[in-house]
Amino acid sequence: MFVIGIDGGGTKTIAILVSSTGEIVAQATGGTSNPNSIGIDEAKNELLKLVHSLSIQNPKAYKNVVSVFAGLSGIESPKYKEEMKQILQNQLPEIAVTIDNDAVIALFSGTFGEPGVVQISGTGSVTYGLDSKGNRHRVGGWGYLIGDEGSGYAIGRAGLHAAFLEKDNRGPSTEISTLLLEYFQVKQIDSMIPLIYGERARTTIASLSKIVMLAADHRDQVALEIIKYQSQQLGEQITALIQISTFQLEGKIPVVLTGGVMNRSDLLLNDIVKTLKDHGINQVEVTVPKLPPVAGAVIAAFQAVNKNLDKISFQNRFLEDYV
Amino acid sequence: MFVIGIDGGGTKTIAILVSSTGEIVAQATGGTSNPNSIGIDEAKNELLKLVHSLSIQNPKAYKNVVSVFAGLSGIESPKYKEEMKQILQNQLPEIAVTIDNDAVIALFSGTFGEPGVVQISGTGSVTYGLDSKGNRHRVGGWGYLIGDEGSGYAIGRAGLHAAFLEKDNRGPSTEISTLLLEYFQVKQIDSMIPLIYGERARTTIASLSKIVMLAADHRDQVALEIIKYQSQQLGEQITALIQISTFQLEGKIPVVLTGGVMNRSDLLLNDIVKTLKDHGINQVEVTVPKLPPVAGAVIAAFQAVNKNLDKISFQNRFLEDYV
Repeated sequence: MFVIGIDGGGTKTIAILVSSTGEIVAQATGGTSNPNSIGIDEAKNELLKLVHSLSIQNPKAYKNVVSVFAGLSGIESPKYKEEMKQILQNQLPEIAVTIDNDAVIALFSGTFGEPGVVQISGTGSVTYGLDSKGNRHRVGGWGYLIGDEGSGYAIGRAGLHAAFLEKDNRGPSTEISTLLLEYFQVKQIDSMIPLIYGERARTTIASLSKIVMLAADHRDQVALEIIKYQSQQLGEQITALIQISTFQLEGKIPVVLTGGVMNRSDLLLNDIVKTLKDHGINQVEVTVPKLPPVAGAVIAAFQAVNKNLDKISFQNRFLEDYV
Repeated sequence: MFVIGIDGGGTKTIAILVSSTGEIVAQATGGTSNPNSIGIDEAKNELLKLVHSLSIQNPKAYKNVVSVFAGLSGIESPKYKEEMKQILQNQLPEIAVTIDNDAVIALFSGTFGEPGVVQISGTGSVTYGLDSKGNRHRVGGWGYLIGDEGSGYAIGRAGLHAAFLEKDNRGPSTEISTLLLEYFQVKQIDSMIPLIYGERARTTIASLSKIVMLAADHRDQVALEIIKYQSQQLGEQITALIQISTFQLEGKIPVVLTGGVMNRSDLLLNDIVKTLKDHGINQVEVTVPKLPPVAGAVIAAFQAVNKNLDKISFQNRFLEDYV
């Protein structure tokens, strides 16, 4: 029994063909499949190309696919969602095809298909919840110009801001300034401006979060304060989601932390958890999943055909194969 | 004796032909003359068109022009500055032609040509100082993604942020939300997102500062706090400039507040002055000029040929004519 899991993000799309024991028998990566970025026709093509690639890599397993689950960004529009479903259903008739947003698969990569809360913090940030009644909730995710607190963008921007405050004699000395000069290969802080502003400003700034984290590793006080504040913001967003009156979950609430920033969860975790506790939220189980989001799509694909997985052995086998 | 004053901003360029008594005998307005936005050739054309228009409007006064002063944005590059000077000098040979940045003329519109500090707060913000030795200093002005504290953009962004915090149950109720829904003609706060993000996001957000100010007029606490914080940021920037070790000025330092945000200086002035005082800066004279920046260019043009103006009568006459 095989399924296809698809993770469609803002910059790339990953599709994998996996057995219920977690064996990955085919894997393909393409560009973004976000219809808001590239148009619906291009997005459909991207999905088809990837599925086609899986079929060629392992025709035998492909014939035994029983379910497809795609977690896609940019499918808030019901029309887009339906079109994406149709294109996959036409390609794989008579099997279960589900399209959902990419936050759900990120959640499932940590909860193995159970409800809970996921905090995604990559270039942008969003908090997403699925409760035991199947209700969905969202906090944040307003984009880089308005919010995206606790995102790579927010951390990178705060680092830049600190460097310019130091330059203007308005803020304390920070190693971030030195690291930025080195990173951009310039001699003066102002010289970074034309290198930052441009079409890719958002991702350029988000990538500077790594510089802030490096400075924090060196115990730079300004960097540590930025990380602390942004972690608190993430904690506040998770709190807001859990406190939404219609959010219902019995027992401990799983809180899954994912996205590029969480590669450095060692720097953020304590302050996130502390913020939750400060708000009286103790009944949570915070995890940083070992599995990538696309594994959440695979888990959801098995769930769609009522196939229970042996969690630990599935995870271990999957991670052996996953590139 | 007539001079030409030119104010070249990010969206429009104004040129006027004025007598030493402040009588405006010709006035022309064109698009931006910022070479970084439209290229140097287009920028030069824009200046020529305006000067040509002045010459047609009043050929007699034009023949008696003794000096031209242009305060232009985007001429940090010495090459651009020289090219802009040449194009005007070719057009008006044998008379004094000066090109300077647009912050200087904003300063002079408040100091009548004397050194001092100018805080510009329009779509963006920058603090600029000219000391008694002719040294120039700058604080802030890093653009909307990194800083621009106290700008229209910063105020508008803070207003949006407050509305989204309220929506997410993370912040207090604010009239800003109601006013934003009305302004964008939408029913839900999220529905604003596609209307905000786009090519003109920066100016769209900056224009929302008016909404924050309207809410502040109604004594909305969130709006009042935004205005207070942003005013403090302006005060901090002015403080940083005055504290730059090489900035030298005897007696009271003139501090000129200009730009679109300062149309509502009634809301900002107290907290700006209080912030300066909190930093021990008392020897300042803070003014919001009645004259527009282009008048600063006119004053500088007369100064370039050593012509002293009768300040008050010049100002009154100028404002009678200025449209």
